[in-house]
Amino acid sequence: MSEARVCPQRMRFEAPLALSSGASIAGYELVYETYGELNAERSNAVLVCHALNASHHVAGLAAEAPHEPGWWDNMVGPGKPVDTRRFFVIGVNNLGSCFGSTGPMSVNPSSGRPYGPDFPVLTVEDWVHTQALLADRLGITQFAAVMGGSLGGMQALAWSYLYPERIRHCVAIATAPKLSAQNIAFNEVARRAILTDPEFHGGRFYDHGVVPARGLQVARMIGHITYLSDDSMAEKFGRALRQSVDRTGPDDYRFTFDVEFEIESYLRYQGEKFSKYFDANTYLLITRALDYFDPAGRAGRDLAEVMRAARSSFFIASFTTDWRFAPERSREIVQALLKAGKPVTYAEINAPHGHDAFLLDDPQYHALVRAYFERVAVVPAAAQEAQ
Amino acid sequence: MSEARVCPQRMRFEAPLALSSGASIAGYELVYETYGELNAERSNAVLVCHALNASHHVAGLAAEAPHEPGWWDNMVGPGKPVDTRRFFVIGVNNLGSCFGSTGPMSVNPSSGRPYGPDFPVLTVEDWVHTQALLADRLGITQFAAVMGGSLGGMQALAWSYLYPERIRHCVAIATAPKLSAQNIAFNEVARRAILTDPEFHGGRFYDHGVVPARGLQVARMIGHITYLSDDSMAEKFGRALRQSVDRTGPDDYRFTFDVEFEIESYLRYQGEKFSKYFDANTYLLITRALDYFDPAGRAGRDLAEVMRAARSSFFIASFTTDWRFAPERSREIVQALLKAGKPVTYAEINAPHGHDAFLLDDPQYHALVRAYFERVAVVPAAAQEAQ
Repeated sequence: MSEARVCPQRMRFEAPLALSSGASIAGYELVYETYGELNAERSNAVLVCHALNASHHVAGLAAEAPHEPGWWDNMVGPGKPVDTRRFFVIGVNNLGSCFGSTGPMSVNPSSGRPYGPDFPVLTVEDWVHTQALLADRLGITQFAAVMGGSLGGMQALAWSYLYPERIRHCVAIATAPKLSAQNIAFNEVARRAILTDPEFHGGRFYDHGVVPARGLQVARMIGHITYLSDDSMAEKFGRALRQSVDRTGPDDYRFTFDVEFEIESYLRYQGEKFSKYFDANTYLLITRALDYFDPAGRAGRDLAEVMRAARSSFFIASFTTDWRFAPERSREIVQALLKAGKPVTYAEINAPHGHDAFLLDDPQYHALVRAYFERVAVVPAAAQEAQ
Repeated sequence: MSEARVCPQRMRFEAPLALSSGASIAGYELVYETYGELNAERSNAVLVCHALNASHHVAGLAAEAPHEPGWWDNMVGPGKPVDTRRFFVIGVNNLGSCFGSTGPMSVNPSSGRPYGPDFPVLTVEDWVHTQALLADRLGITQFAAVMGGSLGGMQALAWSYLYPERIRHCVAIATAPKLSAQNIAFNEVARRAILTDPEFHGGRFYDHGVVPARGLQVARMIGHITYLSDDSMAEKFGRALRQSVDRTGPDDYRFTFDVEFEIESYLRYQGEKFSKYFDANTYLLITRALDYFDPAGRAGRDLAEVMRAARSSFFIASFTTDWRFAPERSREIVQALLKAGKPVTYAEINAPHGHDAFLLDDPQYHALVRAYFERVAVVPAAAQEAQ
């Protein structure tokens, strides 16, 4: 089936937005894409929130990069679990990211130079507020669902307690109610690799015509290890040696610190690729937003107290081999929701691929999301009146 | 009890040693310490092998650094599980390490400059051969036991199949029969951090009067995360914020990429401390020796085939929360030993501290080692004759 190419759109917000940090930002832009059509009742809108390194380009083929399908193209599209023949889906590049929305690479109007380290530190809640402003401008009073995986799932959760009247279903996959010390530790090592790269220049590397590529590479390599399960790494790479002309036999070591094993080659490739397109300041910002997310921390340490404000139904899913945000972390969310008396569907999916599983095309997983979106498609009478 | 101070000793080896890589090294020195006394039958010697960042200084207080007890001082000493009133214990700094034995910082006789990147890449088996040469010079035909944790445990295992007649007991704790892809991946990220540090200078940083401190810091931070369990990090640090004068309230974020959480402060401190005493080339060498260890790989992929050569008894122990070398990895060793018909005692110790548990003073763990060394102390008649 030949699909229409999707084109990113751009929305500018002049009014200053107060941020969690106490700072504010004005005159910023958000880039977004939409798929499907908003119905006359404006009741079929679904917001898809992205994680660390993704963007507004959720599905389909972008007009400007026809070989790169959206990052959740197996989930969102015509006939897919989130069926764009029924739903009007919005993908938005978060403020502070580096795929078109205003971020550290953008010109700071007060200096005429890129923001760099002067870009304000953001939180998950700040993103949700900007997404709500975008929804206002698109005439969407209430989302049928807000969904996301990992950091995207945190945004979906935050929607449910920040804008309870504006979200009917919260779909939060492979996520956590807050980072653990180990999660923060991995983020911190990645940040140290970037911050100590001499080409970071205190975040003003744009002015020097360089990028802290070495730091970004190491950061991405660390991230990648935490996205894959031990088992999937073992199955995909094991201890296989990389083919090399100077290897005397297929099983013979070369006795070098250069690439010897396939896993090394894979990680270096991923790191190098990433360092060519991702902004270092954005990496710092987004990992910090992850660290800071802790709704219960600001509510007497009881997540159920926070979630009591929600009016939505919830779909929570986790993957058995995800050790970044293990099933246990999703169960914490489920327990809090049950304690708060909220309707919740929970799926613990037997998948070998670790945290990355939320992006992959697992039949059981997709069948569960598809079934849940059958419920999302049913607009209750009360909600119809509210539109 | 006031203990005598221990003094490191030094042994020089002029004869060239053929290494696994095909290279050879001559005129090298090993630094070692001994504790207790070798008995008249020379039947009570125990070799303790060290892991990545430890040294010959296993126990007691060194004369030159009286405030730093040995790295396994809770395990080895008078009245301790490995009782130096009964056993003659030897700690040796491995070839290529940076605590006194010949390594990359040493002068390469063929150039008159530090070896740096020209120091040969080593394997666990190479270390065992150097340790055997040291034992020859000390007049030790057969060790009562060779023991170690982590990489030290790999050396103990290698002793059992390389020198079956020279070891009565193999004590291998918190170790693995080979690294997994994930283990190699973590090593590779650490190496990349070092190799891409501009102050590494291709390994010739000594000539430039600098050290690749940033790379070493990141490497150590990554290592530290893998040494601790998720639970012990949660218990020790959780999401606690670091005290700071500019924090408006005890629970208020400062919105910075500088230290915010206690775990960040801890990791940075560990990284900085490490970068001041550890040699970057040694870090590369030792992580590579870890990667390369795979006795089954060179025996038709069957570890039991390799272990069939062994004549020793085995004590294998693992810790429930160790995710670097999980209990499953020790069970692989146990299964191979059983298949090979070797006497093996296996302990899976319920300890919260992750991989680091092998260094800690856990009563159950120490009681098990103590009990095993009661057996090690019994010298069979056949062995007595062999001395």
